[in-house]
Amino acid sequence: MSEAEKTAFLREVLTFWDKLTEEEKELLKSNAQTVKYKQGEHVHSGENDCVGVLLIKSGELRTYILSEDGREITLYRQEKGNVCILSASCILKNITFDVMIDAEQDTEVLLINTAVFEKVCSQNVFAENFSYRIATDRFSDVMWAMQQMLFMSFDKRLAIFLSDEISKTGSETIRLTHEQIASYVGSAREVVSRMLKYFEREGLVVLSRGAVQVLDKKKLRALI
Amino acid sequence: MSEAEKTAFLREVLTFWDKLTEEEKELLKSNAQTVKYKQGEHVHSGENDCVGVLLIKSGELRTYILSEDGREITLYRQEKGNVCILSASCILKNITFDVMIDAEQDTEVLLINTAVFEKVCSQNVFAENFSYRIATDRFSDVMWAMQQMLFMSFDKRLAIFLSDEISKTGSETIRLTHEQIASYVGSAREVVSRMLKYFEREGLVVLSRGAVQVLDKKKLRALI
Repeated sequence: MSEAEKTAFLREVLTFWDKLTEEEKELLKSNAQTVKYKQGEHVHSGENDCVGVLLIKSGELRTYILSEDGREITLYRQEKGNVCILSASCILKNITFDVMIDAEQDTEVLLINTAVFEKVCSQNVFAENFSYRIATDRFSDVMWAMQQMLFMSFDKRLAIFLSDEISKTGSETIRLTHEQIASYVGSAREVVSRMLKYFEREGLVVLSRGAVQVLDKKKLRALI
Repeated sequence: MSEAEKTAFLREVLTFWDKLTEEEKELLKSNAQTVKYKQGEHVHSGENDCVGVLLIKSGELRTYILSEDGREITLYRQEKGNVCILSASCILKNITFDVMIDAEQDTEVLLINTAVFEKVCSQNVFAENFSYRIATDRFSDVMWAMQQMLFMSFDKRLAIFLSDEISKTGSETIRLTHEQIASYVGSAREVVSRMLKYFEREGLVVLSRGAVQVLDKKKLRALI
């Protein structure tokens, strides 16, 4: 990567670039180096490891945690143009957990040295703000992963219930409140409402007060 | 709360206070109001709800999500001096998940209006940075909760919970039902009851209606 390409990539990915002093830009540039990882290679291995900030040029990184019995729980995946900050979590003092990061494909990154990035963050609030913001992005990813884990089969359960109701009543309009449905399927009203809204966005049902109208029985049954 | 007390509290908790203009300080002050929640009251109920930023004056807030079968999975608890930003997650566009927040005890907060806090964040990077930083704090809390849930053997998890309760309350009698303990540790009542009975047989605790008395703290901690 030429110097001009490097600068263009840094400017594109580090959205706070224009808020940096010339000196800070120079510092980041001269401490950013291209690193290539082979598919399957470990990029970051949890504790006592602070590789640096990774700006993904191509490929894919996967962040996960390990269970006590060695199972991998994927938290999120990142692709081109994304910045991986948890590989430099030592920069953010309030990140108190460890993750593992692997290259899912052959991956090329621009790696910014930890100490240098930390220095820039400590003297430029825009850089620090960027770091916390992308950490918050990952927070959302992790919550999504956690909910997937917890709710894995609920769409299925709810689809079974709705299908059964249609068969039972012979009507495609199910006249039950979310509260009632929740009690039938053994869940909570909030959980039912959320999933029904999701079904609505997917065009499976239309919701109205006290009723759920099934629009697409085929698609509903496909969930089961 | 007098105006002087309010200002002192805002300055203490909002660590970016000194970076604000006089106008911004005035705006926050005049849009911050004391709100009281009774023990057990819902403070925030997930989607389509953007209560505001909560600065906890006393009491305790618990943030949780619901599992598919309606179980409450506690993500973290916050006490005096803590700022709850997920109750105003509409401010942070990259927070894409919903949580529930309840008052665990009678709780008094200073509530800052969402629109006003958002305005200050949009014009003052130090305020925005604070918001992302405390969101990242919560990220760490959630990772901790997730790891507890996923990986630790349950006796360990329960022992940690009981030890923490003793430290927090200063009493060796924990006045919670098995149901409540289950919701705190992200498990089911049956699992908690079974494990507590096991602890009782081992001489670690004595069980009575609505309470768990810890007999042997040393042995309990040895499990951790």
